[in-house]
Amino acid sequence: MYKIDHLGIAVKSVAIAKAFYEKLGLPVSLEETVPEEKVNLIMATVGESRLELLEPTSEDSTIAKFLAKRGEGLHHVALQVPDLASVVARLRSDGVRMVSDEIKIGAGGHRYIFVHPSSAGGVLIELVEE
Amino acid sequence: MYKIDHLGIAVKSVAIAKAFYEKLGLPVSLEETVPEEKVNLIMATVGESRLELLEPTSEDSTIAKFLAKRGEGLHHVALQVPDLASVVARLRSDGVRMVSDEIKIGAGGHRYIFVHPSSAGGVLIELVEE
Repeated sequence: MYKIDHLGIAVKSVAIAKAFYEKLGLPVSLEETVPEEKVNLIMATVGESRLELLEPTSEDSTIAKFLAKRGEGLHHVALQVPDLASVVARLRSDGVRMVSDEIKIGAGGHRYIFVHPSSAGGVLIELVEE
Repeated sequence: MYKIDHLGIAVKSVAIAKAFYEKLGLPVSLEETVPEEKVNLIMATVGESRLELLEPTSEDSTIAKFLAKRGEGLHHVALQVPDLASVVARLRSDGVRMVSDEIKIGAGGHRYIFVHPSSAGGVLIELVEE
């Protein structure tokens, strides 16, 4: 029921990242643009998970700000959980801080929310529903 | 054949991390000490992968230095590959830099090597053999 859905990685160039992950032997998807997030992304499938390689398309994108502050590298981890609403309720009742008030619905119709890194040992954790 | 074997996360306290990941609904292992790495660690199983939560036991451990420089958070990702020697040979022939000259053998007998972040878009990637 639980799995690592994907691992988000901030990169300056998806083209360079693509070449590297293909050398590793991983199949890499075609590049796509996500205007809401102001990123170009490619994905490398690895077992039941994906590496999501994110290149900013604008200086005010979250990923551009991350690159300016921390440089390229691991950005977030998305964990698939079986019952998102009940997990979020349990976390909230224990004082865990979420990035948004509500569970959001992504482009593909999946439900997700981010746990604030201050409540998750410095890790930006995205919780996504199966 | 390929999978995310584990995701290494640097934490100040495995006890605090344990409480958080159990709230998420993940089974967390007992704490163990790895003297060679100067860490206490716990692991949370998530699907076919694990989260490896690493707390330094000494100020000169790699994880202590990471915490001092970057704070708590995502530290490395370990990818299981089917044939480590041939993957490493292919990467080296393409000019990819490894952290060590040789493939190493870990406590459990598994073979591993780290790709240098400078060759992997800022990500510390551990390659482990199945």
